[in-house]
Amino acid sequence: MINVKIVGAGGYGGVGLIECLSRHPDVNIACLVAKDDVHKPITDIYPHLHGHVDLMVHAPDDEEAQGNFDVVFFSTPDKVGMRLAADERASGARLIDFSGDFRFQNEELYAEYARRISLDPAHAAPQLLPESRYGVPEVLGRDYTGVNIVGNPGCFAVSVLLGFAPALKAGWVDERKLIADCKTGVSGAGKKPNALFHFPARHDHMNAYRLTGHQHVCEVEQQLSALSGSEAVLTFTAQVVPASRGILSTLYAPLDEGVSYEQVLEVYRNFYADSPFVQVFDRSHAKGMGTAHVRGSNSCFLIVDVDERSGTLRVVSQIDNLMKGQAGSAVQNMNLMMGLPETRGLEGPGSYP
Amino acid sequence: MINVKIVGAGGYGGVGLIECLSRHPDVNIACLVAKDDVHKPITDIYPHLHGHVDLMVHAPDDEEAQGNFDVVFFSTPDKVGMRLAADERASGARLIDFSGDFRFQNEELYAEYARRISLDPAHAAPQLLPESRYGVPEVLGRDYTGVNIVGNPGCFAVSVLLGFAPALKAGWVDERKLIADCKTGVSGAGKKPNALFHFPARHDHMNAYRLTGHQHVCEVEQQLSALSGSEAVLTFTAQVVPASRGILSTLYAPLDEGVSYEQVLEVYRNFYADSPFVQVFDRSHAKGMGTAHVRGSNSCFLIVDVDERSGTLRVVSQIDNLMKGQAGSAVQNMNLMMGLPETRGLEGPGSYP
Amino acid sequence: MINVKIVGAGGYGGVGLIECLSRHPDVNIACLVAKDDVHKPITDIYPHLHGHVDLMVHAPDDEEAQGNFDVVFFSTPDKVGMRLAADERASGARLIDFSGDFRFQNEELYAEYARRISLDPAHAAPQLLPESRYGVPEVLGRDYTGVNIVGNPGCFAVSVLLGFAPALKAGWVDERKLIADCKTGVSGAGKKPNALFHFPARHDHMNAYRLTGHQHVCEVEQQLSALSGSEAVLTFTAQVVPASRGILSTLYAPLDEGVSYEQVLEVYRNFYADSPFVQVFDRSHAKGMGTAHVRGSNSCFLIVDVDERSGTLRVVSQIDNLMKGQAGSAVQNMNLMMGLPETRGLEGPGSYP
Amino acid sequence: MINVKIVGAGGYGGVGLIECLSRHPDVNIACLVAKDDVHKPITDIYPHLHGHVDLMVHAPDDEEAQGNFDVVFFSTPDKVGMRLAADERASGARLIDFSGDFRFQNEELYAEYARRISLDPAHAAPQLLPESRYGVPEVLGRDYTGVNIVGNPGCFAVSVLLGFAPALKAGWVDERKLIADCKTGVSGAGKKPNALFHFPARHDHMNAYRLTGHQHVCEVEQQLSALSGSEAVLTFTAQVVPASRGILSTLYAPLDEGVSYEQVLEVYRNFYADSPFVQVFDRSHAKGMGTAHVRGSNSCFLIVDVDERSGTLRVVSQIDNLMKGQAGSAVQNMNLMMGLPETRGLEGPGSYP
Repeated sequence: MINVKIVGAGGYGGVGLIECLSRHPDVNIACLVAKDDVHKPITDIYPHLHGHVDLMVHAPDDEEAQGNFDVVFFSTPDKVGMRLAADERASGARLIDFSGDFRFQNEELYAEYARRISLDPAHAAPQLLPESRYGVPEVLGRDYTGVNIVGNPGCFAVSVLLGFAPALKAGWVDERKLIADCKTGVSGAGKKPNALFHFPARHDHMNAYRLTGHQHVCEVEQQLSALSGSEAVLTFTAQVVPASRGILSTLYAPLDEGVSYEQVLEVYRNFYADSPFVQVFDRSHAKGMGTAHVRGSNSCFLIVDVDERSGTLRVVSQIDNLMKGQAGSAVQNMNLMMGLPETRGLEGPGSYP
Repeated sequence: MINVKIVGAGGYGGVGLIECLSRHPDVNIACLVAKDDVHKPITDIYPHLHGHVDLMVHAPDDEEAQGNFDVVFFSTPDKVGMRLAADERASGARLIDFSGDFRFQNEELYAEYARRISLDPAHAAPQLLPESRYGVPEVLGRDYTGVNIVGNPGCFAVSVLLGFAPALKAGWVDERKLIADCKTGVSGAGKKPNALFHFPARHDHMNAYRLTGHQHVCEVEQQLSALSGSEAVLTFTAQVVPASRGILSTLYAPLDEGVSYEQVLEVYRNFYADSPFVQVFDRSHAKGMGTAHVRGSNSCFLIVDVDERSGTLRVVSQIDNLMKGQAGSAVQNMNLMMGLPETRGLEGPGSYP
Repeated sequence: MINVKIVGAGGYGGVGLIECLSRHPDVNIACLVAKDDVHKPITDIYPHLHGHVDLMVHAPDDEEAQGNFDVVFFSTPDKVGMRLAADERASGARLIDFSGDFRFQNEELYAEYARRISLDPAHAAPQLLPESRYGVPEVLGRDYTGVNIVGNPGCFAVSVLLGFAPALKAGWVDERKLIADCKTGVSGAGKKPNALFHFPARHDHMNAYRLTGHQHVCEVEQQLSALSGSEAVLTFTAQVVPASRGILSTLYAPLDEGVSYEQVLEVYRNFYADSPFVQVFDRSHAKGMGTAHVRGSNSCFLIVDVDERSGTLRVVSQIDNLMKGQAGSAVQNMNLMMGLPETRGLEGPGSYP
Repeated sequence: MINVKIVGAGGYGGVGLIECLSRHPDVNIACLVAKDDVHKPITDIYPHLHGHVDLMVHAPDDEEAQGNFDVVFFSTPDKVGMRLAADERASGARLIDFSGDFRFQNEELYAEYARRISLDPAHAAPQLLPESRYGVPEVLGRDYTGVNIVGNPGCFAVSVLLGFAPALKAGWVDERKLIADCKTGVSGAGKKPNALFHFPARHDHMNAYRLTGHQHVCEVEQQLSALSGSEAVLTFTAQVVPASRGILSTLYAPLDEGVSYEQVLEVYRNFYADSPFVQVFDRSHAKGMGTAHVRGSNSCFLIVDVDERSGTLRVVSQIDNLMKGQAGSAVQNMNLMMGLPETRGLEGPGSYP
């Protein structure tokens, strides 16, 4: 059994891990850590766990929270995981971090990211970067040899990256004119109440926000630049709609002349032929398929289209922001890092409706 | 492996079974039957099953839909299961029916039920009633010896019955003055579109309906009468709220003088001490606990209260109408009928939020 | 023109008044007062007012907030209005208060209320009680002679009181066995964000809360006791459902033998024959009519029923909690106090869907 | 008083007109016509009109539905209004049509539109086109001299056109690379129930649909081509989100080098300086402002932005699809055609939350 500690257990990232890992046959949830609600049962925070998970929440410094865990998840904000990583590594644990801390594998790239979102550009644990990687195996491959730390991708980022990757790899689009129009359910903003996400203010409300400088743009541009061999520029719009879960990212890029819809579709299908969580659909599916169909599963559903009148590639990418966008990807990354089948503990459909 | 056929696979009852049984380690979903969308893949109807369940839908008369199944589920309206039951029993299958067809174990009781809701009072398969039972093991016990057919309870019924049973068994309330004020999410009305459940008409709308003669009243009254040894009368109000899943039933009954809140709470806790799916909570939990906390699981959460000023027992009973109220109870009943642990395939919390 | 000041303009009560009064032909909104967001335009708090209302928010002590207003609304918590009332009265203003401060017209009744909800039982302005009244004209009449202060009713209270009043006046029910099962949309809890009303936590969630001691019970019991001539006792359950607006209160009371449904219906129709905002419907309407049909209007829709099997009166009472439950009633009370037609500024349906 | 007939009164377009016109001081709703629910009171279809509008619904051929109305609204599908228009014009009525029938002022343009969406390209009343016009006065001006028929704009179309018009008029964007990513609430699909809009299927679901050939693209392209003097090409994505009302259209276009954000903002502000219903906001408002803030009003809120990294104009356009997108625009057009102030009957904010 893999003994696991979850730091940041009280947030939506944490509870998503608890749910996924409580169904994982090879995992024992050994310890829950949070800053709030310490020394209370996790069921006080999440009553739906009554009868299923009866662990206590520990403070980070509690004795019970120290020790030799096999895997430690940091479902924490930027700059937390990187400060705790060295000690956890020293105790032998492998790490999966939910922030931007380990999404960039050298100091320069990290610094560029940090500057864009007004963080200190210095990485607190640069010596760990060589054993880290970015956690989107469908694009970066499944060889986790020597990987001890995974930078789990941002929720918007993974939806955009999966949607654009095959086209940029094929070299068929203008990589400097990429547009991602992204809509998220409210859970993407986390558990903390907020005037914008108060039910009466949100129930019939959609809005755009943070038009410039969203923290997920940088990791997408770096990965797409690597794929295309040329600097990719992304115009990114984040929007919130009155749903709880789900990201629907509609992606646009100028398509090279002469490339047909059928060719594009084939490239996408081939690119993801060996990826169990990514399903590619032709454009006839754009008549009902949407985010509820990936809710609760680790799937990414891509609908591929070409607008022939304007010569535009259009891809509709759909994920559950708390699964493929967060806890699901994290478990997938853990499986690969620990030598387990990629889908272990992530089988089965979500529940519908 | 238990080979299973699901009749009525296209409805919410059917898809709930598919989800639960695809996670069940001892079950093989062998055949899906429906009247609509026949000879299409089930993923055409429920795209969230892409990558998980790739069965075709068969017509009832298809050759592939005949044969020796171990268990057949009828997620069908009244009068369907009873007409098909004898043939299925002859082929050796055990049956679980989602309608009122097998909720009453003798012809007189069935006739009373049928008359109340304007159905033909004659049962089409009376010879099968002796090997049938009503499927609420928490109240009727777990001895399924000789049981080959289970009448799965109505969704409102199971929420009300579980909430009232301990009090009526104790004999502490006036069984002729029972009130159940029930609120359901819209999925309780099934998959078929309807003007009342059209999103714009429903999103900010709650209403009462069918004030007299709801089909679930009869089974509750019969079970509660049996428990109390005297005829129980239930005033029942069905209401729909703008949620997808969940039933919250608030139950009221005049409490005998001298019975304290603490006594009531103890009786409830003892009654359900051996029932893994029923959790009893004291009234301090009535400050946030609700239907989202049972969503996706087979749990029933009961909050027990006494209003001392008026001498009234008050119980808040919460279930997922598609789980404990339908597919979850059905799998629980299958487990008990097949000699498996009651919770098999039903472990794990739902996903939140 | 009636010059109006709104104290507590930043909350849902305040913005409801702004909306209603901006449509009122006889009113000039002269001053907005709040404790937060002072010296900002009200459009910063409520962007939907852009192009319609461009007033600044004043602090309570601002010079511009003093002066001779004709009517002052206190959309403020308990104990605020009573402390400010004497000064405002001295300047000649008439007052409408949204809290419990002026819902009880003598010190003893107020003290009983205050004790039940753990407030200081002493009223800060007892000398003003003789010129105050409770603001439910459909039950207490429309003679506002000598009334200078109105205690605007609680949202749950007005829905329950209107639903029970005719039956208690007729003397046909057991006034000691009244049950009100009330469901409210989330806006009833106000504008302040809260973990329970965070969109992801609420979107598919209903729950009961505050089973004992809700602050609206006392005013209902006092009014119903007065109507029936005997002490009324109410078992009251507050519940929140995932709607923005609307209260649906389902009311139950043991009905005297021999009283028929038709008699009850006639009594209700007669009772409200002259009340433009209360519409009485027979039970055939309980098949779709609900809270969306009163949303945005000052209407109360009552569906009257008798459950003959159990001898129970059942009334489904539906209002918009922010209109008839708050700002709409306040404007209605202002109209009556100022000698205007009761419906002035409150004409017209809400918008649907 | 202007006597008005509404054809198609039973749909969301019809009820929106009823609501707006019942508040309009110069209008008398003289006749409601529909094909369904004829000879029933309109309150049977829309119970929220109880106490406000008590008209009967007439069949199109009813005697009461003939006669001399001043204005006739056709809230009907394509090809209906054009067939009825000549007779209504002969009786002296002026017309406002909600379909594509009168959105194109010559036969060739109409034929192009009709072909794109697979309708018969022949217009049934070409002789009436010279006295018709397209109803977006903010872009086409307010001189309605000689106009007797208005083609009311499509809901998506008006949101996109208002958002792009100033930039295309200024000539600062590449008119062949326009992208409109549009999200609508479900009411945009009308009142008819549908599997996609069934509450449980929709409540937590967003999806793209009809990727090619949406019926609103043609009118936008024609108007934008006219503004820019060169053929405009629009890539258009329609998406449905789990809201009842509201359209949020996010618009993208390559911006000419050297044009600054400040210049763009000024051009937009000047363009709409005299348009009471269009409000232009700088990009700092993209942090909460959204569709709930235009709900129930005829406003269009435009947030103007330039993404400097990619040289892209970005405009977020927000309307209430049933108001500015339908009934509100229709009343605005009626006002202008009848010589009334543009805002008559459309004053006042919507209700929030």
